[in-house]
Amino acid sequence: MSCSTPGPEPLPAAFVAALRGLLGEAALLTDPADCLTYGYDNSRRLTLPQAVAFAQNHEQVQAVVRLCHQYRVPLTARGRGTNTTGASVPLAGGLVLSLERMDRILEVSPGDRLLRCEAGALNGAVQAAAGRHGLFWAPDPTSAAFSTVGGNLACGAGGPRAVKYGTARDAVLGLKAVTGEGRTLTTGAYTSKSVVGYDLSRLLIGSEGTLAIITEATLKLLPRPSQTRLLRAAYADVTAAAEAVARIMGQPAIPSALEFLDGEAVRLAEEYRPTGVPAGTGALLLIEADGEAETLPATVRAIEAAASGAGLVELRSAGSAEEAETLWACRKALSPSLRKLAPKKVNEDVAVPVTQLPALIAGVQALSRAHGLPIVCFGHAGNGNIHVNLLANPDDPAQMGRIEACLAALFRLVLSLRGTLSGEHGVGIDKRDYVGWEVDADTLEQMRAVKQLFDPLGILNPGKALPTATGI
Amino acid sequence: MSCSTPGPEPLPAAFVAALRGLLGEAALLTDPADCLTYGYDNSRRLTLPQAVAFAQNHEQVQAVVRLCHQYRVPLTARGRGTNTTGASVPLAGGLVLSLERMDRILEVSPGDRLLRCEAGALNGAVQAAAGRHGLFWAPDPTSAAFSTVGGNLACGAGGPRAVKYGTARDAVLGLKAVTGEGRTLTTGAYTSKSVVGYDLSRLLIGSEGTLAIITEATLKLLPRPSQTRLLRAAYADVTAAAEAVARIMGQPAIPSALEFLDGEAVRLAEEYRPTGVPAGTGALLLIEADGEAETLPATVRAIEAAASGAGLVELRSAGSAEEAETLWACRKALSPSLRKLAPKKVNEDVAVPVTQLPALIAGVQALSRAHGLPIVCFGHAGNGNIHVNLLANPDDPAQMGRIEACLAALFRLVLSLRGTLSGEHGVGIDKRDYVGWEVDADTLEQMRAVKQLFDPLGILNPGKALPTATGI
Repeated sequence: MSCSTPGPEPLPAAFVAALRGLLGEAALLTDPADCLTYGYDNSRRLTLPQAVAFAQNHEQVQAVVRLCHQYRVPLTARGRGTNTTGASVPLAGGLVLSLERMDRILEVSPGDRLLRCEAGALNGAVQAAAGRHGLFWAPDPTSAAFSTVGGNLACGAGGPRAVKYGTARDAVLGLKAVTGEGRTLTTGAYTSKSVVGYDLSRLLIGSEGTLAIITEATLKLLPRPSQTRLLRAAYADVTAAAEAVARIMGQPAIPSALEFLDGEAVRLAEEYRPTGVPAGTGALLLIEADGEAETLPATVRAIEAAASGAGLVELRSAGSAEEAETLWACRKALSPSLRKLAPKKVNEDVAVPVTQLPALIAGVQALSRAHGLPIVCFGHAGNGNIHVNLLANPDDPAQMGRIEACLAALFRLVLSLRGTLSGEHGVGIDKRDYVGWEVDADTLEQMRAVKQLFDPLGILNPGKALPTATGI
Repeated sequence: MSCSTPGPEPLPAAFVAALRGLLGEAALLTDPADCLTYGYDNSRRLTLPQAVAFAQNHEQVQAVVRLCHQYRVPLTARGRGTNTTGASVPLAGGLVLSLERMDRILEVSPGDRLLRCEAGALNGAVQAAAGRHGLFWAPDPTSAAFSTVGGNLACGAGGPRAVKYGTARDAVLGLKAVTGEGRTLTTGAYTSKSVVGYDLSRLLIGSEGTLAIITEATLKLLPRPSQTRLLRAAYADVTAAAEAVARIMGQPAIPSALEFLDGEAVRLAEEYRPTGVPAGTGALLLIEADGEAETLPATVRAIEAAASGAGLVELRSAGSAEEAETLWACRKALSPSLRKLAPKKVNEDVAVPVTQLPALIAGVQALSRAHGLPIVCFGHAGNGNIHVNLLANPDDPAQMGRIEACLAALFRLVLSLRGTLSGEHGVGIDKRDYVGWEVDADTLEQMRAVKQLFDPLGILNPGKALPTATGI
């Protein structure tokens, strides 16, 4: 883990006193030992904040922002720190504001398919509350059990079922938030349609806490299908699998998950623990379909038909939970296998248009050879969202240069295929300096102006989401 | 039709000469007789522009915006003028920029489910181009055959199938646009997921050309189900129908249209032309389900089960195209009936959370009695989006005051039910002065600041979307 100390000036005593007066002694940490755990997230980064505050409600968040604004103290809002890009690392020191104590589910209205909660509510708690009414919230990141709604929204989280149900931006009706000036915004509506005023909700979603701190969200829920069925399709090569993905996505029976593993991923997983993937498999699709008892069989048949074609080696469908377990065992074996091989692997969640998947995978294989780095690709193929894993150690000075060169080449490749540098993990610190490769200069300038408008002093999560070149 | 003449200063000769040099003689109208048809839209408003320009491409739009910026000339971009709120009426005079000649479909990539087109392309042309690949674009306003993609996006258009497939904001991958300063923005991505940079796409969608002029759009397409089935459910009263709507929306088999007619609407339609709606019908639901041959029957059964319950008078399903025609005849008879009764009727497209539908309809009936105005309600019930039609003549001075009082009371009612003043028609001029009733003062101030940022001189479509109180 890399630890950087910004060495900022101590926080003004008057600021700390005001904060203590506002929140109470139990809601403020200033001892570095206590602050440490709020200095890192699920990235490989750590910066020690000078203080950590815990807010109990929207009004406290607003008051804290106003204090930080008044004293020009950097302010990084934080859920549970599960993001992988450094987005919640307090790069400039200052104050970390944890929303973990604002975890109330304020309202569930099943007839209106909405749930209102505080930003610190866990995704898993939301799913449980919605589930009691046969509903669910679309975003399903791997971290769902212990990541917050606010964090999911800040990062624009997705997950496997985004292929059918969309990501955070598609799953919100309205927000309550506080801008960098301490102004309360109440955006959106309680209805599934509204065109009154500008859409500030989506502007805040995915902005990584750099424009405003989301304190409350009205989430759009969806009815949860009662049944799922798992399929596993093995193909001779990546091109055959990618063509199958395009066929599956081109017909109306959309799967609720469409996961891809390249040949190398399959080989490593099978080496770690053999799970019965047929020999000669150059790429694997793991497919989930959902529906009702009456409709699911037809959906599965439609997906099976679309999955079938040139290069299909084997197509299996799970008739029972045990069989499902068997079919997904290969995917489950992959993670420990990679952890064993390269505990500090570099994982980039690029996305390309679905038809460009074969070119992406072929290009990645070429990069692997050129840079002498093993690379494994897997991910959410239905969105063209591939996790490209460099099995290397970024802390090893001998590898660092090669990794950086390989990543730069990967990003160039992705953009040449009309792709995006992040499908769902976000920018944070990790991809900040590459944003200008994807977003043109004029549009980036407009984004900087938006940042300046919402946070004139630049106190909110400094150094994230946008390149810092011009000093914002 | 009300005609207001802003009586602005004549356009500077140098501006007109520069415009002519830029676009050519054939792309500029300055004779008031020629300009007249570009001074109104499908609202009841007309303001004569001083000139009308036709752009051929993005670069011309940018050059025109820069000229208008330089000379501080009001600039109203326009598709085909089908909106109903005055959003494309050039309230401050100045220049109307018609994008109707920018109607090229630039690219269809069926495997990537995307279509890229210029803003002046007709919705109908997009549907036809997508349809050749078994795909469609979600927004389906009544005007689809002759409204433009740019107009649909500017207004955040929906339509009946939004209940299943969403509105304009859900159906765009990226945009090309020009801000009020003449800066080109390229927003979004070609992928179905991306979290790089701020989401400026959704900020522009629904902003009615007040922030930037959209010149090009990359649209998200969906696979078109091959079959549809129509149902008609008659209920004893509005409450029974509204409860059925909540039941239908609470289960996973979402209809592709869920249209509502209140008892008064049914009565008027049957008076105009009897279509076999059973006596004692207090409210009617017209329901469309879509799917494949294998899945549709089960979907229809699920919807029929949800539609059944207390107060159901009759539930009919169309087995053939002729039967479908019969079932929808009542809805089709309604429009000419209303046109005959009240050719200048006032139509408001408010929306409330689905569970508030009974309260909305009951409240509207009370308003009708209190203000002595016949009111008919119908619309997209699955989104709680009800078209409230006041059968009155706003040009009749004797009625005008009562209409205004009734509308104000209607809007208060809608907001008390946590609703929104416009589900899909937008704000334009008509609802501009009511926006502050729905959007709180702080949030409205932030929206004004966003407007100021994107269009510092306020040249883009002045007097629309936001209240003008502070002079922006």
